[in-house]
Amino acid sequence: LEVGGTRLVLTHDMIVEGVHFLPHDPPGEVAWKLVAVNLSDLAAKGARPIGALLGYSLGEEAWDRAFADGLGAALSAFGLPLLGGDTVAPPAGTPRSFGLTAIGEAAGPVPARCGARAGDRLWVSGSIGDSAAGLAIARGSSGPHALVDRYRRPKPRLGAGGKLAPLVHAMMDVSDGLLIDASRMAEASGVGFEINLGAIPLSPALIEFAGDSREARLAAASAGDDYELLFAAPADRTAEIAAIAKALALPLTPIGTASTAPGLRLHHEGAPVPLPKRLGWEHVRR
Amino acid sequence: LEVGGTRLVLTHDMIVEGVHFLPHDPPGEVAWKLVAVNLSDLAAKGARPIGALLGYSLGEEAWDRAFADGLGAALSAFGLPLLGGDTVAPPAGTPRSFGLTAIGEAAGPVPARCGARAGDRLWVSGSIGDSAAGLAIARGSSGPHALVDRYRRPKPRLGAGGKLAPLVHAMMDVSDGLLIDASRMAEASGVGFEINLGAIPLSPALIEFAGDSREARLAAASAGDDYELLFAAPADRTAEIAAIAKALALPLTPIGTASTAPGLRLHHEGAPVPLPKRLGWEHVRR
Repeated sequence: LEVGGTRLVLTHDMIVEGVHFLPHDPPGEVAWKLVAVNLSDLAAKGARPIGALLGYSLGEEAWDRAFADGLGAALSAFGLPLLGGDTVAPPAGTPRSFGLTAIGEAAGPVPARCGARAGDRLWVSGSIGDSAAGLAIARGSSGPHALVDRYRRPKPRLGAGGKLAPLVHAMMDVSDGLLIDASRMAEASGVGFEINLGAIPLSPALIEFAGDSREARLAAASAGDDYELLFAAPADRTAEIAAIAKALALPLTPIGTASTAPGLRLHHEGAPVPLPKRLGWEHVRR
Repeated sequence: LEVGGTRLVLTHDMIVEGVHFLPHDPPGEVAWKLVAVNLSDLAAKGARPIGALLGYSLGEEAWDRAFADGLGAALSAFGLPLLGGDTVAPPAGTPRSFGLTAIGEAAGPVPARCGARAGDRLWVSGSIGDSAAGLAIARGSSGPHALVDRYRRPKPRLGAGGKLAPLVHAMMDVSDGLLIDASRMAEASGVGFEINLGAIPLSPALIEFAGDSREARLAAASAGDDYELLFAAPADRTAEIAAIAKALALPLTPIGTASTAPGLRLHHEGAPVPLPKRLGWEHVRR
């Protein structure tokens, strides 16, 4: 939205109990996640957050208080003013459901998901698949607690998003799964991506939990909730991107290339790999 | 929010099935109401709507389609672009719940609820109490269908809000009940209001349905969902306000005066009237 010569970026994401978080997740972490998933959208557009509005369903008082404390902590961690919002008191027994509108200001160009061109490199920030493993661990599997933290407290890549925005042709956040989000970028851009499964960055904690097989890599690449940045940039931007990674101490990893042939093609250790049936999380009706 | 020299006004209101609308309300009317209640907030700040974001809980497909049709009609009636939003698929059986963020641009001063001064006149737009009567009729009481329409299709007073904003000391929309909203304006402004119960504008349809007794007037003044403008303005603005009412063919009615004594005081036909216990709808937890 262009307002008074300023480019505003607005996003509204909701989270629902039983869908986006578990009933026994700590309320403060739910609040963190609500803020973080929205700021991740701003990060992918290179926008600096300037305010938020909250839609809140009141429930049990102790839970609500703990949520409010966590919300305050998240807002202050991101320097995000809460400008307003609404509270409602739904009928007893209704699953909790919250919405946040985040407003950001872009200093420069706002990358869309539709700008990737043949010849671009495809990159991803951080590591992929941690959050889905963390969810399995939160549900009772045994594994490193660091992964649960990645599921409950995603870190929006605001610094990287702001610095990358002027360099990239297309950028989006990975929220539904790397493969499905890459396929959406490819389709929107009218290109295809060759993705090297072996190049997808997995964290040491995930490799400890799930191993490093082709199956484990496919599972990580089609899991959701990563909140990393996925971007396509011309090959001659590689040195600048590497410098950003170094300055922020955040891995930025090339995982593939764009070509004119539509769709996704995966390979691993030199061999083609068939696409899994499920590329990620689809927003389907129940 | 000041952005690039422009005053943005942002609001986020939610509506929940069983709380803000009835399960058998037509989906298109629910969509209308969601848009209208948010635009009513912008109207009270004198802001022109420039966009909206929707948070939508998916449910039964036919209902969702009818909602989408109604939403499209409402957005186009108000010239409001839908900029984005989110859909979620909550567990089956969850009451429907929707949120809308509306973004507006103010051409001039943005009236707060805290600016009323002793000596101001207190005004209200349109008529009061129709919507609550319409709800009773929608629930099975017999009465004029025009009142149901007022409940289901509130009209945000955008034109009046924009013209009144430069003239008033304080303005807000009446959503929880005239008396409770007036008491909030009084408290925020550090003044009190003397309100003439007999001056509160009742529509002919409401008088047909509920009569014109003191009790009927108290009920109308403490019912919610009116979405009219309540504003305090200096007495020397009376002629300009009357001219706006005439130009818009919208009644703007003086109903009281502000004084330094805090609180609300009601009178009717020259006699003081005790405040009812319940002044309106309070946002309490279930």
